[in-house]
Amino acid sequence: MSPKITTELLKQLRQVMKSPKYVQEPVQAYIVPSGDAHQSEYIAPCDCRRAFISGFDGSAGTAIVTEQHAAMWTDGRYFLQAAHQMDNNWTLMKMGLKDTPTQEDWLVSVLPEGSKVGVDPFIIPADQWKRMSKALRSAGHDLVPVKENLIDTIWTDCPQRPCKPLITLDLSYTGVSWRDKIVALRSKMAERKVLWFVVTALDEVAWLFNLRGSDVEYNPVFFAYAVIGMNTIRLFIDGDRMMDPAVREHLQLDSNLEPEFKIQVMPYGSILSELQAVGAGLSPKERVWLSDKASYALTEAIPKAYRYLTPYTPICIAKAVKNSSETEGMRRAHIKDAVALCELFNWLEKEVVPKGTVTEIIAADKAEEFRSQQKDFVELSFATISSTGPNGAIIHYKPVPETNRTLSVNEIYLLDSGAQYKDGTTDVTRTMHFGTPSAYEKECFTYVLKGHIAVSAAIFPNGTKGHLLDSFARSALWDCGLDYLHGTGHGVGSFLNVHEGPCGISYKTFADEPLEAGMIVSDEPGYYEDGSFGIRIENVVLVIPAETKYNFKNRGSLTFEPLTLVPIQTKMIDVNLLTQKECNWVNDYHQKCREVIGAELERQGRHEALLWLIRETEPLIRAQ
Amino acid sequence: MSPKITTELLKQLRQVMKSPKYVQEPVQAYIVPSGDAHQSEYIAPCDCRRAFISGFDGSAGTAIVTEQHAAMWTDGRYFLQAAHQMDNNWTLMKMGLKDTPTQEDWLVSVLPEGSKVGVDPFIIPADQWKRMSKALRSAGHDLVPVKENLIDTIWTDCPQRPCKPLITLDLSYTGVSWRDKIVALRSKMAERKVLWFVVTALDEVAWLFNLRGSDVEYNPVFFAYAVIGMNTIRLFIDGDRMMDPAVREHLQLDSNLEPEFKIQVMPYGSILSELQAVGAGLSPKERVWLSDKASYALTEAIPKAYRYLTPYTPICIAKAVKNSSETEGMRRAHIKDAVALCELFNWLEKEVVPKGTVTEIIAADKAEEFRSQQKDFVELSFATISSTGPNGAIIHYKPVPETNRTLSVNEIYLLDSGAQYKDGTTDVTRTMHFGTPSAYEKECFTYVLKGHIAVSAAIFPNGTKGHLLDSFARSALWDCGLDYLHGTGHGVGSFLNVHEGPCGISYKTFADEPLEAGMIVSDEPGYYEDGSFGIRIENVVLVIPAETKYNFKNRGSLTFEPLTLVPIQTKMIDVNLLTQKECNWVNDYHQKCREVIGAELERQGRHEALLWLIRETEPLIRAQ
Repeated sequence: MSPKITTELLKQLRQVMKSPKYVQEPVQAYIVPSGDAHQSEYIAPCDCRRAFISGFDGSAGTAIVTEQHAAMWTDGRYFLQAAHQMDNNWTLMKMGLKDTPTQEDWLVSVLPEGSKVGVDPFIIPADQWKRMSKALRSAGHDLVPVKENLIDTIWTDCPQRPCKPLITLDLSYTGVSWRDKIVALRSKMAERKVLWFVVTALDEVAWLFNLRGSDVEYNPVFFAYAVIGMNTIRLFIDGDRMMDPAVREHLQLDSNLEPEFKIQVMPYGSILSELQAVGAGLSPKERVWLSDKASYALTEAIPKAYRYLTPYTPICIAKAVKNSSETEGMRRAHIKDAVALCELFNWLEKEVVPKGTVTEIIAADKAEEFRSQQKDFVELSFATISSTGPNGAIIHYKPVPETNRTLSVNEIYLLDSGAQYKDGTTDVTRTMHFGTPSAYEKECFTYVLKGHIAVSAAIFPNGTKGHLLDSFARSALWDCGLDYLHGTGHGVGSFLNVHEGPCGISYKTFADEPLEAGMIVSDEPGYYEDGSFGIRIENVVLVIPAETKYNFKNRGSLTFEPLTLVPIQTKMIDVNLLTQKECNWVNDYHQKCREVIGAELERQGRHEALLWLIRETEPLIRAQ
Repeated sequence: MSPKITTELLKQLRQVMKSPKYVQEPVQAYIVPSGDAHQSEYIAPCDCRRAFISGFDGSAGTAIVTEQHAAMWTDGRYFLQAAHQMDNNWTLMKMGLKDTPTQEDWLVSVLPEGSKVGVDPFIIPADQWKRMSKALRSAGHDLVPVKENLIDTIWTDCPQRPCKPLITLDLSYTGVSWRDKIVALRSKMAERKVLWFVVTALDEVAWLFNLRGSDVEYNPVFFAYAVIGMNTIRLFIDGDRMMDPAVREHLQLDSNLEPEFKIQVMPYGSILSELQAVGAGLSPKERVWLSDKASYALTEAIPKAYRYLTPYTPICIAKAVKNSSETEGMRRAHIKDAVALCELFNWLEKEVVPKGTVTEIIAADKAEEFRSQQKDFVELSFATISSTGPNGAIIHYKPVPETNRTLSVNEIYLLDSGAQYKDGTTDVTRTMHFGTPSAYEKECFTYVLKGHIAVSAAIFPNGTKGHLLDSFARSALWDCGLDYLHGTGHGVGSFLNVHEGPCGISYKTFADEPLEAGMIVSDEPGYYEDGSFGIRIENVVLVIPAETKYNFKNRGSLTFEPLTLVPIQTKMIDVNLLTQKECNWVNDYHQKCREVIGAELERQGRHEALLWLIRETEPLIRAQ
C-alpha cells in the first residue's frame, strides 16, 4: 500500500473553499465526514469522498481541511491502515488516545478568530451538527452549510450514483404488504400526533415498500427517500426503475387506488424542496417526524417547532420484529447457508491438510462459490473475514494480496462470512483448527463457547434490553483474566442490512430498545491474542418466548433460538471445562444441525458434506 | 396506614399557584421534587415537602399538581406504599412500566396551550431543569423558577431547619487531613483548568472537612456549602457550631495559617449572593466547577460560558475510593455490627419460637439496642426494615403501629438494617424462618443466594462499570421466571451516607464510574411475592484486586470481599440447587464469620450469641 498523493487535490479544495462560485463567504475549514446523505454504514463509491480526498478508505473517519492543515480522525481499528494510505499532507488524529484533541477542540486551536467552518448539510446528521455548531459558536466561529459538496466539485472522475434495477418482494417473503405497513405507520403517527413522517434511512425505505436494490455493495438497498402523510405517499427515486412493469404492478402505480395509497413518484433530488414546501405549509400543532440522525439539511427544512425527532423511527422498530414469513425465510436462508459452509469446511479439510495450497482469499472465494449455488442467493452480506493465525486477531480483517496467508495445520482459522438470499440475511463465524490445537487455544476457545452458550441459552423477562446480557458472554473469560474489546451482538435485517438497530447485545449501547419475540440478533463473543490467533463463535439467533416455571407473574419471558446451524468444531473444545448443562447444549445443537442440515444436504445430494456433518456432530462426552 | 386527606391542601396550593403574592404570572402546574437544596436522598423534616402535600413519604417520588390533576411518579419499590398513603386526589405514576408517561409527556398531555410550569429553583437540579424545560418549550409551555417555595407558603407548622453540633474526625478515622484533601482537590481543579469549585452535596462538604453532623436523620451530615478557590476556602454554615473549640481547633480557625488554607466562615443563606459575586467577577477563560446535579439556582449564578459541569465531582470520586484507614474502620464497624446481629438473632429465636410476642417494631428496637452497645455507635444508618410475612414484600417497608405484625414460626422474617459508627457505616439484610420454610420459599431463597454469590464472587477487568454486573444477580431467578424490581447494589459511605455515588450495581444506571479497588458497594438481590413474603440477602462488599490466570494482559482484575460477616440462614437453603462452587462459597463465608465474629463475641463475653453463631455456621453438605 503506497499513500495517495494529495498535494494537488488539497490545493484545489482550498481554492474552492474560497471561491464565490461555491461558497457565499470563504470557509477557513471544510469537514468531510464518512457517511452518505442517508447515514448509511456501507456507502456507494460516489459517496467515498473522504477516501478520495485523503486516500484513507477505512469504514470510519472524518477529514478536516483548513488553509494550513489537513487532519483525519479515526479509531484504533484503522490507525495502521490510515497511516499507510495517507501522505505527509495529513495528520492522523488517533481517536480514543488521551492526548488526541476532538475535532472541535482542534478547530478552535488552529482557526483564526471568527472563522467559518463549512460542511455539506446533507452528509452531516442533525445531532452531530448541533454538537459541533455549539462548540464552534462558543469559541467565536461559525459552522455553515455549504450547499454544493466541495469534494464533488474537484472530483472530476467521480463515479455516477448507482441506479440499479429493483427487486420486488411478494407477500410470501415479507408477510405484510406495503399498504398494510403504511396503515400501521400512520397509526403510529396518529398515536404521537404527527402528520408527516420522513423516511431517510435506505433500509427503511426498502422495507416499507417491500422493494430491494443493489445500489450499495452487500446491502440490498437503493437510493430513495419517502415522505408519508396521513393521506399521501411520496417516493423520491431516480432513473427508469419506475418504468419496470413488475415494479409498477407491485406499487400499483397504474391502478385505480384510493387516494391515500396512491404513490407519487418524484425525483430523488427534489426531496429538499418538497420537504421545505411541507414545512412552509404546516399549521400550529402539525408535527413532522424525523430520525434525530437524519441530515441537517432535511431536518432544517422543517421549522424547529414542528419537528418531532426520535432516536429510533417506528419503521426501525417495526422492521426489527420479524413476522412469521420473515422468520421462516430467515430459517430457510440459514439452512442454505449451512449447506454451503458444510461443503466449504469439508473441502478445506481435504485441501488444507494434505496440500497446504489454500490461502485466505481462495477460502473466501470458495465460500462465496458454495453460497452462490444456493437458491435465491443474491450477494454476500459483508466482505468475508477469512483469516488465519495472527490475521485472526485483527477483528475487522479482510484478506488482500499483501496480507494473504496460507491456511495450515499449525494455525487457527477464523471465517466470518454471510450472504444475502432473497429470503434472508446470514452472518456466521466459525473458528477451527486443521491440525492439533494447543491446550491454551482449546482453553480460550472453550471460554468463548461458554460465553456464546450463556447468551444463547439465557432466559430473561420481557422488556429486557440486550445490553444487560452482554456480561453473560464474558463471565467465563473474565474468570481467567481474558476479555474481548467488541460488543457481543447486533441486530440483523431480513434480506436487508446485516447490521441494523434498534437492538443488540453490547456494553457500549444503552439506548437500545428492549428485546422482543421476533427480533433477530447475532451472538458473537470472541478472544483475540495479538500476533497469534483470533477466536470468535457467532450464530444468528431469533428471540422467542421462553417457558419458565413461574413466568415472571405473566410478564412473560424470552430466550433465543439459533437460526445458524453449522457445527462448532468439537476438536477445539476442552470438554472438562464445560458444565453438564453446557455439554448438553452443544450436543442438542449438533443434533439439530445433523437433523435439519443433514436432511437438506441429502436432498441436495451433497453426500461428502453430509458425511463431514455427521462426523462433526458426534456427541461430546464429559468425564464425570 | 390510612391515606392522608389532601383535598384542602391541594385547594390551597392551587390558590397560591395563581397568587400574585408568590408568582409573577399564574402557574398552571407546580412540580414538587423529593429533594432538598443539596439534592440529598435523605432529607430533614423541613424539606419533606412532597410528603407534606401528598402523604407519600417514600424516599423517591416527584409530585406534580395542576389545576385539575395531582400525580405522583415513583418507582417499583414504592408502588404499594404510595398507593396506601395517597388519597383519591392523586394518580400514581408507576415508573418503569411501559405505559407510564414521563412527567414531561404527561404535562404536555394535560396542560392548556402556553402554560407555565413552576418549580423551586433551589430544589430542582440543573440537569433536570434543562431536560424538563426543553421538553416543555418544544410543546409551547414554559418552565419557570418560583423563588418562594409554594409548599412552604401553605405549610403552617413547617419544622425549623436543624442546626446540630458537629463531630470532628481525626486522622486515625479519615486517613487524610482536610488540608491534604484541599490540596488534592486544587490539583484536580488545575488539571481541568478551573479556578473555583462549588461543593453543594452535604456528604461532600462533610468528607472534605473531616466533619460530621446530625442535621439529617441517619446521615451524619450538616447543612453547609463550600466554595473552594485556588487561594481561598469559604464555608457557608449557620448557627454557633463554629464557636465549638474542638471545631475551631480542627479547622485551625484561630491559627496563623497560610492564606490559602484559611477558612472564611459565612452564613448558609449567603451562598447565592456570594456565588453571584464570584460569577460577576470572572474574566474570560476562568471557569467554575459544579456538579450537573447542583440546583438550578446556584448553577444560574455562574454565567453559562464560565460553567464547568460534570456528573460526578472530584470529591465524589475521591470519597468513593476508601483509603486504608477508612477500610480498616469499615471492617471494625462491620465486626461490631455482626456481633449485634448475632445477639439479636439468638434473642429472636429464644423469644419468637416459644412465646410469639415479638413484633416487627420490638425486633427493630432490639436490633438498635444491641447495636448501641457497640463502641463508637452513633445512630442507625437508615430506618430499619423489620418485616414479616406479606410486609416483607413491601421493599422499603418500615413498621408502624398500624402495620406492625408479630413474628411467628409460620412466616419469613426480613431484616434490613444498619448503623453509623464513628469508624464506618453498615447495611445488612438477612432473611430467616423461625419454623419450617416451605419448599417454594426455600427455592426462591436459594435463587436469591445464587445471585448474591454470582456478584460477590464475580471477577472482572479493571475499568468495568458496576451496572455490567447487575444481570449476574438475576440469572438464577430469570431461569425460573422470577425477578426483582430494584437495583442490586449501591455505594456505601465511610461514616457517611449509606447510599453514595458514583458507583453501584444496577440495570438502571449507565453513568456510573468504573469500579476501583477500595470502593465499597452493597450486593443485595431479592425476591418479593406480593401478599406473601419478601427475601433479600445483602452484604456490604469491598472492591479488591483479584488474581486470575491471565490477568487481562496486565490490565488487572477485580473482585469483591464481603465486609458484612453475618451468617446466612442455612435452613432456608435448598442445597441441591447450589453448585459445588456455590456451596463452597457459603461454607468459606461461614467459616470466616465463625473465625472473625466468633473471636469478637468471645472477647465481648457474649457466650450465648457465640453458641448461636457456631450452630448457624455449620458447613452445608451437598448430595453428590
